[in-house]
Amino acid sequence: MIAGYLGPQSSFTHQAAQILFGKTQLHAFPSIPNCLQAVSEGTCDCGVVPIENSLEGSVHATIDYLFHKSNLQVIEEVILPIKQQLLVSPMTQLAEITTIMSHPQALAQSQTYLERHFPKVKLEAVSSTTAAAEYVRDHPEKGYAAIASTQAAARYQLTIAATNIQDNAVNQTRFWVVKKAPQEEQKSSAQIETGANIAKQTLLVTLPSNQPGALHQILAAFGWRKIGLSKIESRPLKTHLGEYFFVIDLVCEQSSRLIANALEEITLLGATVRNLGAYPVTTITDSSR
Amino acid sequence: MIAGYLGPQSSFTHQAAQILFGKTQLHAFPSIPNCLQAVSEGTCDCGVVPIENSLEGSVHATIDYLFHKSNLQVIEEVILPIKQQLLVSPMTQLAEITTIMSHPQALAQSQTYLERHFPKVKLEAVSSTTAAAEYVRDHPEKGYAAIASTQAAARYQLTIAATNIQDNAVNQTRFWVVKKAPQEEQKSSAQIETGANIAKQTLLVTLPSNQPGALHQILAAFGWRKIGLSKIESRPLKTHLGEYFFVIDLVCEQSSRLIANALEEITLLGATVRNLGAYPVTTITDSSR
Repeated sequence: MIAGYLGPQSSFTHQAAQILFGKTQLHAFPSIPNCLQAVSEGTCDCGVVPIENSLEGSVHATIDYLFHKSNLQVIEEVILPIKQQLLVSPMTQLAEITTIMSHPQALAQSQTYLERHFPKVKLEAVSSTTAAAEYVRDHPEKGYAAIASTQAAARYQLTIAATNIQDNAVNQTRFWVVKKAPQEEQKSSAQIETGANIAKQTLLVTLPSNQPGALHQILAAFGWRKIGLSKIESRPLKTHLGEYFFVIDLVCEQSSRLIANALEEITLLGATVRNLGAYPVTTITDSSR
Repeated sequence: MIAGYLGPQSSFTHQAAQILFGKTQLHAFPSIPNCLQAVSEGTCDCGVVPIENSLEGSVHATIDYLFHKSNLQVIEEVILPIKQQLLVSPMTQLAEITTIMSHPQALAQSQTYLERHFPKVKLEAVSSTTAAAEYVRDHPEKGYAAIASTQAAARYQLTIAATNIQDNAVNQTRFWVVKKAPQEEQKSSAQIETGANIAKQTLLVTLPSNQPGALHQILAAFGWRKIGLSKIESRPLKTHLGEYFFVIDLVCEQSSRLIANALEEITLLGATVRNLGAYPVTTITDSSR
């Protein structure tokens, strides 16, 4: 089996893919659409992509691709803690650091630490945390530091000069494993999987005539059946301003028959439902293994 | 009066600010937080920032700053068509173009045109459409082109080689004018403005104990009063994964008393409501003036 993931190597998505599938048969892709397209076309058997971060919110590239361009299903979710490390070349002392490089999001996540400890050091945005670590390894004489993962430190033989420098102790990212939907599953929006491990189900719902007022009616179908929603979010349909589809995450504590009934009912009410599937959720507390 | 806006000059936000306030007393800021902070601190009397694009969705920097860091009110909304032009130096022929530069979003919005007409030309991402136009003006011998606005063409004396090259005919952006809330308005979340021109009202709602299931109850308070919602969106509270606040846009067709009653009720139900205010909405169909 080949699993694609949003690269580069040593990225947090790579960590998630390693935890799920071990270190073999993994293939890095340069972008989320590239990775999802490879799964759609059958080049990869499944793909691992980020879907939401606790600070930055949803990853629109993932949700928009799944809605607009693919017929993929979610088969698993894994939640990973995001811990940023300050990495230097073994020959660089903390006081010698002249520039700190990383992905813009990692720089933003470490803002408080950087302002306190390195208020005068130049910050430089690069394309990934891995690219920053690679640059630091390749230019040990420059006194550069990178913000990247523990895995990147090991991979590029860098020293961890400061650990867990991210602002928020509960910085976490959700990753989805997606695979191609079998033909018959594509046809039935109300189909539901069952199993002891199933924790959540995600729906992409377009309301009849794009009336956001109808949202209340749709939510009522879940509400009076006591089906919990763990998330609801609107994304533009890319048609006109003010026209959206909704991403709805259901908590699968209730009988799957109740959920199937609710889905059938909201389809009868005129909504279009794309069922991304029901899937187990695993939360990793220590990703340093 | 001084109005701040998200710069640089000739950006679409600058266009919106010019339509609203004329060409005087405008001050450009390099980022949305910079601009909003200046309004909060009183350096500017009001600020103009983008809030949503029909293709890309909400501008998170704006909504997150308004929720987490400021006590600003929305006083007006203006909707502008986003039309991208291909600009070249007067001495450059179409066939001579070697590189096309622009902001990543403008490159993405013109993807279909670029693939059809310039499949082999190098694309280069820069910090703004204006920066691209300036570079093309400063290097007329290079055969570079920029994707930018009609205003940028005039400002940098460039020739429009192809007009309206954006993919989607209905590409529009919503901009908000914000000002500092008077002290008394900050205290009353249920306060409501009235007036013939008031079209919408925006609320930032945090649910009791962050139960997304409670969302149904909140929406019911608007639903059975037939108060229309033109938008609902979740954004992370930046505390834990799965904890959100909701951005709710109400359509102000009903009596403002009905809206005030609904706000009072959802506050009694335990939700925290930050009222960004009720405001008129102006849609510009031709921004070339």
